[in-house]
Amino acid sequence: MAFDVSIITLFPDAFPGMLDVSILGRAREQGIWSLETTDLRSFGLGKHRQVDDKPAGGGAGLVIRPDVAAAAIDSIDRNGRELIYLSPRGETFTQKLAHEFASGPGLICFCGRFEGLDERVISQRGMREVSLGDFVLAGGEVAAQAIIEATLRLLPGVAGNETSIEDESFSAGLLEYPQYTLPRIWEGQHTPDVLLSGDHSKVDQWRLNRSKLLTEGRRPDLWAAYLNGQRIRASETDDEHD
Amino acid sequence: MAFDVSIITLFPDAFPGMLDVSILGRAREQGIWSLETTDLRSFGLGKHRQVDDKPAGGGAGLVIRPDVAAAAIDSIDRNGRELIYLSPRGETFTQKLAHEFASGPGLICFCGRFEGLDERVISQRGMREVSLGDFVLAGGEVAAQAIIEATLRLLPGVAGNETSIEDESFSAGLLEYPQYTLPRIWEGQHTPDVLLSGDHSKVDQWRLNRSKLLTEGRRPDLWAAYLNGQRIRASETDDEHD
Repeated sequence: MAFDVSIITLFPDAFPGMLDVSILGRAREQGIWSLETTDLRSFGLGKHRQVDDKPAGGGAGLVIRPDVAAAAIDSIDRNGRELIYLSPRGETFTQKLAHEFASGPGLICFCGRFEGLDERVISQRGMREVSLGDFVLAGGEVAAQAIIEATLRLLPGVAGNETSIEDESFSAGLLEYPQYTLPRIWEGQHTPDVLLSGDHSKVDQWRLNRSKLLTEGRRPDLWAAYLNGQRIRASETDDEHD
Repeated sequence: MAFDVSIITLFPDAFPGMLDVSILGRAREQGIWSLETTDLRSFGLGKHRQVDDKPAGGGAGLVIRPDVAAAAIDSIDRNGRELIYLSPRGETFTQKLAHEFASGPGLICFCGRFEGLDERVISQRGMREVSLGDFVLAGGEVAAQAIIEATLRLLPGVAGNETSIEDESFSAGLLEYPQYTLPRIWEGQHTPDVLLSGDHSKVDQWRLNRSKLLTEGRRPDLWAAYLNGQRIRASETDDEHD
């Protein structure tokens, strides 16, 4: 069964965009996932297909009407899928959430624009607010693409040999180690000897150490969480040995 | 002078993508910003224009060669612009970084693919590693679009009246308050009376309170930073009064 993605947007032409190239494009051809876009404008009111109006209480910008948003949402067969509203107020998207989404039947993403969406439709339709990060975009389209891309590449059969999901950043709670390829010497800079030694356990050790150093230096928050996880695992192992 | 954006990518067709619609598209037509894409493939080696090779030390995937990446980078006039490498190992992109980028002359974004980029070109060319968040994408293209979109909308003359940058999430360290628009009653749900009262100071007070409640409930990290900022401001005011 395919992982079904539905997008509600004022810019249906923006999709599939980057979701149709490389490994994700191939996976769509293979039927691993499907894409459907719904044009919010087609549910707009009157001759001009109006989708928004002024914010109650005043202020700049326009707010998407709850009746128009709900009509678009209700036109889609939900099939147990999570309905996501991309918004900087939402829970922060992380690799953990990508894994959670990838283990489900699919996603429905509502892409906002302007000053946002009427609060009532968010609660009445049980929308899950998800944020790409602590910054503000002009609309939800690029955020939806990022979330969907991160999710799709975790589906079985998508990544193939081109990527190594187990080694990458965040899979073990650490940032990824530095990579080197040909040429062996470039602009006077050598590839580290250990990587050319053919000694796999030494290579693994070097990479793990570099991952740790990088994480400790750049991301004290991830580093603290990693150490904490190690401590818990160590105490669990102790228990098993008791 | 325009804010000049250059992108180095294996998928030049992905741009401008969402950067060409709505307020950003209009701003480009008005010459507020410019876009140039450089096809990394055109700097590839041999008949097949190879851009990558196996990682030194083994492992899955392919790594972009430093000589190929450098040739693409060196083909672009840097003009004092920051050279950004989109990578989950980088510093996390936030609204603060968007403001920093928007105050500069432009951006050059290098979009990686596969297992990443040879470490030597990152250091030899002084690339600044920026991460969209703690998740892994199939490539840097969507991350670049997000970072550029967040940055461009802060440029003078871009947002116009469609958005209110001062009220939005993160501008005061708080998440944005809930919005309502027409119809006043929808599915039995009323628009809060205060928003229809016409009393601007009451509306402002209600919105600030809702922003605070939302931030405290959903984002204890932002809430702690906000309270800390308030405390510092209060003590500075005390000093002035002394």
